[in-house]
Amino acid sequence: MSGFNTSDKPMDFFRGCTIFFDLKSGISETVDTGKRYLSQMRGIFADDAALDALLVNGDALVYEFHSLPVPEHEGDLAFGCSIVYPGKVGDEYFMTKGHFHTILDTAEVYYCLSGQGYMLLENKGGDYSAHELTPGKAVYVPKGYAHRSINTGLTEKLVTFFVFRADAGHDYGTIEQKGYGTLVVESDGVPAITDNPKWR
Amino acid sequence: MSGFNTSDKPMDFFRGCTIFFDLKSGISETVDTGKRYLSQMRGIFADDAALDALLVNGDALVYEFHSLPVPEHEGDLAFGCSIVYPGKVGDEYFMTKGHFHTILDTAEVYYCLSGQGYMLLENKGGDYSAHELTPGKAVYVPKGYAHRSINTGLTEKLVTFFVFRADAGHDYGTIEQKGYGTLVVESDGVPAITDNPKWR
Repeated sequence: MSGFNTSDKPMDFFRGCTIFFDLKSGISETVDTGKRYLSQMRGIFADDAALDALLVNGDALVYEFHSLPVPEHEGDLAFGCSIVYPGKVGDEYFMTKGHFHTILDTAEVYYCLSGQGYMLLENKGGDYSAHELTPGKAVYVPKGYAHRSINTGLTEKLVTFFVFRADAGHDYGTIEQKGYGTLVVESDGVPAITDNPKWR
Repeated sequence: MSGFNTSDKPMDFFRGCTIFFDLKSGISETVDTGKRYLSQMRGIFADDAALDALLVNGDALVYEFHSLPVPEHEGDLAFGCSIVYPGKVGDEYFMTKGHFHTILDTAEVYYCLSGQGYMLLENKGGDYSAHELTPGKAVYVPKGYAHRSINTGLTEKLVTFFVFRADAGHDYGTIEQKGYGTLVVESDGVPAITDNPKWR
């Protein structure tokens, strides 16, 4: 790490550090990403038959993201990049599973670096909104809202830089069990909102 | 704001919103920046005579930054861009005043969008480090460390996107009274670290 009197460790969250994330691709030289493949997204997309049909041709990478070993302390912040690949399952775009924070009343900031898509927000009372993401747009995910990144681009990855309170935690279970009430799908060639037929 | 079922407000930190910040310049169409001019930096730079000499030619803009009206709640996150202009006062580069957080044990993340410089960190025990900033480098400002952005580029602005806990608060007074123990200065045409002659 270049600088003056910096730590010998590549990541030091107690004395400070720099970590590189490419401003276009989101890829870091310092840390690998966790990866989510199509086979791990069963039940998340509305059209199970379309998912099975895709899997015949191989287990596509749907998204990847950084999980840095930041201390899970209320004063710390976790950060990294999320990279959603282009693709569709039926008429539904490739997207992240989506999650609430375990400490529900904690926000998150996403800053779009490249690609295009939507951030779909939904709280436990059913209030939803879908915010367009293009390079340079920062999305505020408020306290209490599940959030999911959706890549509506046909060829390009959707790349965002995110920051959240390091002790917030991820609650994926609620979405895996209930789903989102609303979906972003392709309709007549453009993104549209529809009710989730699988919503419970 | 483009999207589906989004708020009518340009900034809504309770239902979610998007705010654009140019990925190169940091400038937002939605929110103005606060501005710090040379005359407001008296006592911050080591060389008072050099500052006075510069002021004869006008009150240069040293840096600007966004202060969004995010609720000051421990679950919220404040964010925006910091833009430090190129220039020097004596052999000291243009920089931000630098500050601790009022809630000392809260971190901050800076992501460098353009330009070059350093993030100078220093805690109340005197531990310091200076982390090089170039586009794509994220700097982790740990709990308990004052932080100051320094533009070592000769012509380009240093632009960073920052996120911190919205209730953290800014303690500028400690730096204004004591200064930093260390400074980043130009020496033989390159950045170097030196002791602050004014440190108290």
